[in-house]
Amino acid sequence: MSKIIILNEETIKKLLDIKSVIKVVEQAYILKNSNQADLFPIITHIFEPGKADMDIKSGHLKGDANIFGLKLVSWFGENSKKGFPEVIGTIMVFDGKTGIPLGILSGEHMTGMRTGSAGAIGVKYLARKDSENFLMVGAGHQAFFQIAATLTVLNQIKKVMVYDPIDYKLAVDFCHKIKAKLNEEILSKCKDDEILAKKYDIDFVATDDIEKSTGEADIITTATPSYKPLIKKGWVKKGTHLTCIGADMEGKQEIDENIFSKARIFVDDLEQAIHVGETEIPVKKGIIKKEDVAGEIGEIIMGTKPGRLSDDEITIFDSTGIAHQDLLTAAHVLKLAQEKGLGTIVEL
Amino acid sequence: MSKIIILNEETIKKLLDIKSVIKVVEQAYILKNSNQADLFPIITHIFEPGKADMDIKSGHLKGDANIFGLKLVSWFGENSKKGFPEVIGTIMVFDGKTGIPLGILSGEHMTGMRTGSAGAIGVKYLARKDSENFLMVGAGHQAFFQIAATLTVLNQIKKVMVYDPIDYKLAVDFCHKIKAKLNEEILSKCKDDEILAKKYDIDFVATDDIEKSTGEADIITTATPSYKPLIKKGWVKKGTHLTCIGADMEGKQEIDENIFSKARIFVDDLEQAIHVGETEIPVKKGIIKKEDVAGEIGEIIMGTKPGRLSDDEITIFDSTGIAHQDLLTAAHVLKLAQEKGLGTIVEL
Repeated sequence: MSKIIILNEETIKKLLDIKSVIKVVEQAYILKNSNQADLFPIITHIFEPGKADMDIKSGHLKGDANIFGLKLVSWFGENSKKGFPEVIGTIMVFDGKTGIPLGILSGEHMTGMRTGSAGAIGVKYLARKDSENFLMVGAGHQAFFQIAATLTVLNQIKKVMVYDPIDYKLAVDFCHKIKAKLNEEILSKCKDDEILAKKYDIDFVATDDIEKSTGEADIITTATPSYKPLIKKGWVKKGTHLTCIGADMEGKQEIDENIFSKARIFVDDLEQAIHVGETEIPVKKGIIKKEDVAGEIGEIIMGTKPGRLSDDEITIFDSTGIAHQDLLTAAHVLKLAQEKGLGTIVEL
Repeated sequence: MSKIIILNEETIKKLLDIKSVIKVVEQAYILKNSNQADLFPIITHIFEPGKADMDIKSGHLKGDANIFGLKLVSWFGENSKKGFPEVIGTIMVFDGKTGIPLGILSGEHMTGMRTGSAGAIGVKYLARKDSENFLMVGAGHQAFFQIAATLTVLNQIKKVMVYDPIDYKLAVDFCHKIKAKLNEEILSKCKDDEILAKKYDIDFVATDDIEKSTGEADIITTATPSYKPLIKKGWVKKGTHLTCIGADMEGKQEIDENIFSKARIFVDDLEQAIHVGETEIPVKKGIIKKEDVAGEIGEIIMGTKPGRLSDDEITIFDSTGIAHQDLLTAAHVLKLAQEKGLGTIVEL
């Protein structure tokens, strides 16, 4: 038997701050693109189409971390009616030298933080530096983290527009509450960070005109469970950057596949992106070939490939989510928990 | 956050008895072959060939159980030098209606019990009822559970021969200790079961002559990490049953592929067997075709396919291990733990 540490939602919320998670996720991308990490095949299962599904992402981080493990995330769309969260994630981390389990972590907040960071890293490396208008498509759980992280990495954003494809009222409600939530959940972990506080003190506006808002946006992030395009090609202005978060299973799609035809495209993992990401449909329809993907985001971070080439081009970051993000974030939070003596130790 | 139950090795050893695990594993095979269970693709990863690997088996049991989950099992060959177990398993079980995690269970003892039961079920349904001599190939951790379960399902076994392909002394030592271990770990959970006690009170003999022992055996069970055949075709007498446990990754092999040419072959899962089981090599070498596999073991248990057709034929059960065994055994032990108030409850 071995002693393992259990970290629940409350503890993880106490320990994680957005700036360090962004750094950790950048590091995860670097590990991936420097052969310091193995990604295992992703497992997806649909319990009932449009109602419930789950996936298991797993992998091995070599080098100093030397851990392996997995995250199982389920989505049960009717959970909210029962008073449970719709998305539930659980992470298991094991020692890469012995296979001994090290920790079990609740994955909801961690997934939000690392997915927000992932989306923001795409924006950081691909959006125009002078971007002022940010359109968030989707007003669910993930939208909050995308906004929190994206505003952190940029300096000139003046307005965030929020569009929800299902219900405008959700976007209105979201905008109404977001400043308090940013204060409570994000800024409270970055005390005395006046620069960040200023970045968050901007306009959040709900929109029900996706065409008009797309035309205004310098940056668009999509985080919905959509199976059909929400953004048409003709609406997107020159120089826009799009970060696509929602598509993580075969058939899911958030933006018009034709946007891909002339865009500069980066992904987190090429194989995953063409099988389950936003890149799947344009490749399957023959609009682009696998070879048209400019590279993986880790290659831009490492400087082995250039990101945006001109102010006019449209850039896309297709983020499908990779196990390394979870594992390295888990390793980070486990270290913090040990330092601060938090978490529950049990014999397994 | 939700309350989950953690069951460690000690608690699981207290709760599981071999007879109920055999019943549970039979039930798991029935669920599989009556479309009451989905098996997800198995993930395997080799950290270092011959030194360390791991796999993740996952699936969904529908019906009354309605749970899904996974088992991650690692093998680190040098762990024993460090004082750790070589094989470590961890099981996670989730509610199939909400995705909420229900329990986390240590997997070593459970895996031993369910794998022993799986092997024994092959013997129960395929070996001749008058079988008297049982040859166990491999004298490792798993051999104990194979013997414990196999003797449970048979009535006339007089002698168990134990052969270890690496070191004869291991087999000698194994035979020296097995009766005490059967008493302590198995019979103690089936108190007052005089029939079982009698079944265990037979001869256990180490052998270093695999050819001769194979010729004597009515039943042969192999449980080694071998990558080359240990049993030649010419050695196997008419009417023998072979249960093959060890092969669970591409390239692993325990018995001569030519034994398959005229045998009646059953597997636990056809796709898994031809990709990672003992059936892989004979299919790859063209000795048999996928269609030559007579069926899955669940089909014999359900009575939809006949097992052994004559006393003369050689039968094979290729057991690769399926997630349903783990999930249903986990559900069983979770229920027992709740009834007896055992286990540690934590907030996740």
